[in-house]
Amino acid sequence: AMAGWGWARSVRGLLLDVSGVLYDSGADGGVPIAGSAEAVRRIKASGLKLQLCTNETQATREDFVRKLRALGFDVSVAEVTAPAPAACRLLRERGLRPHLLVHHDLLPEFAEIDKTSPNCVVLGDAAENFTYANLNEAFRLLIGMEKPVLISLGKGRYYKEIDGLKLDVGAYMKALEYACDVQAEVVGKPAKRFFESALAELGVPAEQAIMIGDDIVSDVGGAQQCGMRALQVRTGKYRPSDENHPEVKPDAYVNNLAEAVDIILQQL
Amino acid sequence: AMAGWGWARSVRGLLLDVSGVLYDSGADGGVPIAGSAEAVRRIKASGLKLQLCTNETQATREDFVRKLRALGFDVSVAEVTAPAPAACRLLRERGLRPHLLVHHDLLPEFAEIDKTSPNCVVLGDAAENFTYANLNEAFRLLIGMEKPVLISLGKGRYYKEIDGLKLDVGAYMKALEYACDVQAEVVGKPAKRFFESALAELGVPAEQAIMIGDDIVSDVGGAQQCGMRALQVRTGKYRPSDENHPEVKPDAYVNNLAEAVDIILQQL
Repeated sequence: AMAGWGWARSVRGLLLDVSGVLYDSGADGGVPIAGSAEAVRRIKASGLKLQLCTNETQATREDFVRKLRALGFDVSVAEVTAPAPAACRLLRERGLRPHLLVHHDLLPEFAEIDKTSPNCVVLGDAAENFTYANLNEAFRLLIGMEKPVLISLGKGRYYKEIDGLKLDVGAYMKALEYACDVQAEVVGKPAKRFFESALAELGVPAEQAIMIGDDIVSDVGGAQQCGMRALQVRTGKYRPSDENHPEVKPDAYVNNLAEAVDIILQQL
Repeated sequence: AMAGWGWARSVRGLLLDVSGVLYDSGADGGVPIAGSAEAVRRIKASGLKLQLCTNETQATREDFVRKLRALGFDVSVAEVTAPAPAACRLLRERGLRPHLLVHHDLLPEFAEIDKTSPNCVVLGDAAENFTYANLNEAFRLLIGMEKPVLISLGKGRYYKEIDGLKLDVGAYMKALEYACDVQAEVVGKPAKRFFESALAELGVPAEQAIMIGDDIVSDVGGAQQCGMRALQVRTGKYRPSDENHPEVKPDAYVNNLAEAVDIILQQL
């Protein structure tokens, strides 16, 4: 796995996906992936910059960081780039008032946003809130708009929790897109604007950053389209068939984050 | 509305969509659309053949006909072409054992089908059964198959009930298609094979049949692709914007079924 990593010599910062890279999520908080907490410490000790770039929308950044710290990860709120704050910026810029179909625990991120007489729908990974009634409600609001505006916090297909794979927000986004004949605006990976925000917060240009993720399309493909190198870990939702993906080819595969950090630090 | 109906002189049979044409459906059984029950009687009295061609998957044909008769419609089970029996034929032909994500009241249609160790998923308008847990279960079965087989009883976007518009099976089909990177096989309108079954049961060739429906794509577009003429009624889920549809243009618009029958009978 060490041949052909010469390009990693110029790296100054890493963007890390979280679920499936640092830990496997689950109803009870999740479990760390072996070696990942130590890998985060080694990144920081090496002087490389680090930013978590997540499509997590089941919790506020504060709660998310609290959970990661409890799992042994030395990270702070400022080190997290997440879709909800990006969506709030977009809503404010365009004077949009959202109807929220999101996870209950994400609601505080939208506390300051005007939600009266909604003129758009914001869709997150609502999990148990993806009920038949809630989907119909979001649908009716959209189909009743002269020009429906659907903002989706990511477009992931599925993710892995301890008790199995779960449909992600992208599947429900497709359902509403089809029913309303509208195209959602995606905030979060793989949107270029979202990666650019993460790079700005990382403080490193794309050519000197590496994205490490378990999602071949959203993490790897999205980062590469922004001019970054990108690695796919063989943890989380990784499946062997990803290695035959017709469109996206990672710059390298690694077994897990610990191996990625080993190899990268050896290049420096 | 009477000019240019010369082509209707050769008509020998009518295919009628049901929800939105005969009645508006709803949790309490629905309400007839004014004039439609009388229109069905006039069709039969005229000697024209009649077949109901529905994507209804919330009930067995027996229960469906019982409901229609209670609403005043003189129809029989043999006069109903519906997706579930068509799906059962397909399952038997191909030795498929389904996991069913359908409405509870539809289950008797699949009573004779082997459902052990499922090797495909059959999706219907499951309504309240479209829970987060049930969608995840269907998804996991599909993503676990070497070659996922998803059979969808229709691909409607939405329909109208008394208390408002509801997402139809097509929206959930798109969610699973996207999550599993698979294309569903659609049984029901607008599948050509389904219209051909309905015509065979009607006993009239396509050129001598007229389809009457409220769905511009599924009813009108689907029937035209099989060589039938097709009318759109301005009842049910009809919306004025349908009249600017970029791809489908009905042979005529009518305000409702009663007006369609008036005009057609005047041509004979």
